[in-house]
Amino acid sequence: MRRVKASGVLRRGIIAVAGVSLLGMAGQSLADDDGYAEYRDRFEPLPALPPIPSDNSLTKEKIELGKMLFFEPRISSSGVISCATCHNPALGWADRIPQAVGHQGQVGKRNTPTVLNSGFLDSQFWDGREDDLEGQALGPIEDAIEMAMDLDEAIEQLESFEAYTERFDEAFPGQDDPVNEENVAKALASFQRTLNTPNSPFDRYLRGDTEAMSEQQKRGMAAFVDNGCIACHSGPALTDGQFHRFELPDGPTDEGRYVITGDESDKYAFRTPGLRNVGVTYPYFHNGMVDDLGEAINIMAEQMLGSELDDDTVEDIEQFLHAMTGEMPDISFPALP
Amino acid sequence: MRRVKASGVLRRGIIAVAGVSLLGMAGQSLADDDGYAEYRDRFEPLPALPPIPSDNSLTKEKIELGKMLFFEPRISSSGVISCATCHNPALGWADRIPQAVGHQGQVGKRNTPTVLNSGFLDSQFWDGREDDLEGQALGPIEDAIEMAMDLDEAIEQLESFEAYTERFDEAFPGQDDPVNEENVAKALASFQRTLNTPNSPFDRYLRGDTEAMSEQQKRGMAAFVDNGCIACHSGPALTDGQFHRFELPDGPTDEGRYVITGDESDKYAFRTPGLRNVGVTYPYFHNGMVDDLGEAINIMAEQMLGSELDDDTVEDIEQFLHAMTGEMPDISFPALP
Repeated sequence: MRRVKASGVLRRGIIAVAGVSLLGMAGQSLADDDGYAEYRDRFEPLPALPPIPSDNSLTKEKIELGKMLFFEPRISSSGVISCATCHNPALGWADRIPQAVGHQGQVGKRNTPTVLNSGFLDSQFWDGREDDLEGQALGPIEDAIEMAMDLDEAIEQLESFEAYTERFDEAFPGQDDPVNEENVAKALASFQRTLNTPNSPFDRYLRGDTEAMSEQQKRGMAAFVDNGCIACHSGPALTDGQFHRFELPDGPTDEGRYVITGDESDKYAFRTPGLRNVGVTYPYFHNGMVDDLGEAINIMAEQMLGSELDDDTVEDIEQFLHAMTGEMPDISFPALP
Repeated sequence: MRRVKASGVLRRGIIAVAGVSLLGMAGQSLADDDGYAEYRDRFEPLPALPPIPSDNSLTKEKIELGKMLFFEPRISSSGVISCATCHNPALGWADRIPQAVGHQGQVGKRNTPTVLNSGFLDSQFWDGREDDLEGQALGPIEDAIEMAMDLDEAIEQLESFEAYTERFDEAFPGQDDPVNEENVAKALASFQRTLNTPNSPFDRYLRGDTEAMSEQQKRGMAAFVDNGCIACHSGPALTDGQFHRFELPDGPTDEGRYVITGDESDKYAFRTPGLRNVGVTYPYFHNGMVDDLGEAINIMAEQMLGSELDDDTVEDIEQFLHAMTGEMPDISFPALP
């Protein structure tokens, strides 16, 4: 706590704007040596914002509009399902059930990923079938087992509200007909890029507050590196963005990225999920069949690393992963028209 | 604006606790005479809180627990429907579709009433089949076309989370087994009693700020009284709490309160809906068949008062009703376990 305050002073004094990652580096070099420096240096704190694409600048107007669209159930054919139904802010911006439930109670075959920090991912969906959030945003609206509404109809719905036509005009100034699919995607992506979880104990630790993680969490960090978890779970979101073959025992057959690419090498391959907020985004894996984080760590060790971890190591890693739970975005309910 | 600030000073200076209704009376006697005093005196401003039952004292712990339960989708059998699905804070704490959509997309036969100010109602549901919010709270959880979960199973679900067992212990101290149906109802009712919308232009006007309503809204107020709307729409929530026969042309047949009481005199009778926030809780009537507030006013005049209002009068009343839109509760998302 003392060190947090000290770095707060440092931030205000030296680095006034977007100081998080700069401070991260400064913090590391200033940090006490707690014996874990070589491990700590393998990780990166979460930047304040993910990369912003050059053709979708992040503006207040787009973020506000995107927030309205994210909570808007009338762009689903039932009228009651919105993005926030499955990406529920009260449940870590996911749903905490094994597989997503959508239109008319239909159950999808995959677990809902959290949208938190999703702007830091190199591709979207478990199978990576979209490159970015703009590409991802429209899929669930028209998917027959999710929101089940034709995009044309969704656009018509939005156009029927003056509050929306005005907001689209403000968010996309100078366009003749701004209420369109592309702009819905851009606004949703913009809002989602603000849903980040900074200042987890892990981030504060990486920025130099050596007391932000417990000794057990530091042991977990070392075990995470020494056992090879970091080979795939690396970078600010703790994912390499790559696809790895992974078959759950007893899980329903899901051919993963193969369905998209048709490449045999992609059979049963899924994108490495990020680990930020993993403590609050259970259940785990692409089919959501595992509730317990310790069990998930064991399964990963066996399947991906071919090793069996002792119970103490699993507990240490589990506690380390809990240190990755950051501050939830402070989002209030929008007032929809 | 000047007068609002003045009454703010007055409130702080003279009446420190729950001063709204006291101030209301003081304000009225101090108010400028704008020519509408005889009409103004027929109405009551919304108190800060509705009546609190003696066997369910309103405590911070119950309100917090009730808020969690209100947003908890895992007490529905699909795992994605919560009270907040139909009573959506982004949509005036209702759903803005004609009839409620629940489990597996089933469509109910009645329009979702807002929970805003529902603690001021003398009975609950369109047919008044429950006396109070405690009686109302459990119905939608077990209703087969709403959340569709047996209450026993809902209780088991809640008991499986330590965060809930702890909260129930705190909210109902000294009880051996506090996670039970009665307490779920009490906590939900407590939360709902905080969902009030004070300080609408109408309330500020009634409390003495003669500039809080426009001249048109004041004309609408006079027309509302002179045409007899106030006969049923009276009291702080603008409802008499009574049941009146009302058949919508073209609406599906719904026998209303008769289904509950079996009394012929209750056939097609529904409880007078409150009018607070009516501008943001469309569509209207028990079957939600009317979107437009002006059309709803016309239908009411014809059906209930046997009169045809001229267009100007309807517009005046409509603007008056918009003055009843108050400040929405400032509710953030709970962090569910």
